[in-house]
Amino acid sequence: MAEPLNIGFLLFPRLTQLDLTGPYEVFSRLPGAKVRLVWKALEPVRADTGIAMLPDTTLAECPPLDLVCVPGGPGVGAMMEDEEVLEFLRRQAAGARYVTSVCTGALVLGAAGLLRGKRATTHWASHDFLPALGATPVEGRVVRDGNLFTGGGVTAGIDFALAIAAEVADPEAAQAIQLHIEYAPAPPFDSGTPKTASPAVLAETKRRASATRTEREALIGRVAARLAAAA
Amino acid sequence: MAEPLNIGFLLFPRLTQLDLTGPYEVFSRLPGAKVRLVWKALEPVRADTGIAMLPDTTLAECPPLDLVCVPGGPGVGAMMEDEEVLEFLRRQAAGARYVTSVCTGALVLGAAGLLRGKRATTHWASHDFLPALGATPVEGRVVRDGNLFTGGGVTAGIDFALAIAAEVADPEAAQAIQLHIEYAPAPPFDSGTPKTASPAVLAETKRRASATRTEREALIGRVAARLAAAA
Repeated sequence: MAEPLNIGFLLFPRLTQLDLTGPYEVFSRLPGAKVRLVWKALEPVRADTGIAMLPDTTLAECPPLDLVCVPGGPGVGAMMEDEEVLEFLRRQAAGARYVTSVCTGALVLGAAGLLRGKRATTHWASHDFLPALGATPVEGRVVRDGNLFTGGGVTAGIDFALAIAAEVADPEAAQAIQLHIEYAPAPPFDSGTPKTASPAVLAETKRRASATRTEREALIGRVAARLAAAA
Repeated sequence: MAEPLNIGFLLFPRLTQLDLTGPYEVFSRLPGAKVRLVWKALEPVRADTGIAMLPDTTLAECPPLDLVCVPGGPGVGAMMEDEEVLEFLRRQAAGARYVTSVCTGALVLGAAGLLRGKRATTHWASHDFLPALGATPVEGRVVRDGNLFTGGGVTAGIDFALAIAAEVADPEAAQAIQLHIEYAPAPPFDSGTPKTASPAVLAETKRRASATRTEREALIGRVAARLAAAA
């Protein structure tokens, strides 16, 4: 590619860092790519697990992006009702070649009105929220609808990023990155989806998430009402 | 587990962030775990791709760790000749329940004398350096020898961390984390190892790494001589 490819991740409090750092590792190795971590200010931002990362660009000063990516995590709830963030995403999406998300980052794109009429995916535990945001839910590690790429939960961001690398550069560039990051996964268990996890593990995981789930349902209701009023 | 599990990652300039952030995501979700990012000072540390992360504990003030983990990346070269870092690793390893590495982090353990007579793995492009550090090279995503766990390149850190989670907690805890991070990988290509990558992709990857390789060979020679003198 002759021109630099401007890639920006939204970095926000209580994001799930692997949603971002998986694709960051892949995108930053794309020839010609310039990757930014974009947030309201430049102070460190702390992920849900405690790790702190530094933004390098503010929302206000971010140049037009070729690819914008929203990661997920517990912090998406606040983002879905943050007009400054939603306006940033709408503005960037209007000119971007690719609009993308990993995990529950899709819910933020949805709150910005960017999933209306589009096929999309998200983390398995939030998949049923997609229709309220105007999207057609599709199960998959990576779902493409035109210039919209959405990835599944957390680690799906690596598969997602390699698929995008093949699209924006070429398959050989993506394969070279895959070889460099030795991505020949061999999970010690087959527990990565609700269909393959044991009933006990699935039940316990759902039980722990039940309070968050109730809170998220109320939020989705508010956001869906706002989207309907704006339509 | 009744007692907190103290886990510490060595955070150092020019590390490969996904070597650290993959296992960080898993370990920080282990019930009872306290995960630290340890470095000489508390200023931000920049990875090889540019992302900056904040250490939270200094080498000097780090409490005894139950599990110490060294990630890899281009910065391991400097670490392998940094006596302050090597002494920290030897001191922690003497009391730790688990001594671990991801990717070329194994070379730093080796430089500290912690791989002598042990079966170990590392990133495929550095695998042949292991014997000079006294280790028996074994191909694998995760290789265990007693209390030493070594992971392969970059993304192997996720498989490595789930294997350790099953060991230090129990398999159900590891499976719940796997489900939460939706780790059911589906790489779009089969290019993650030298054996499966196309000859062209492998040749180009090796060509790009050739200068680093020459530098690393000289370094390994110096470190091996120092280890022999100390033995």
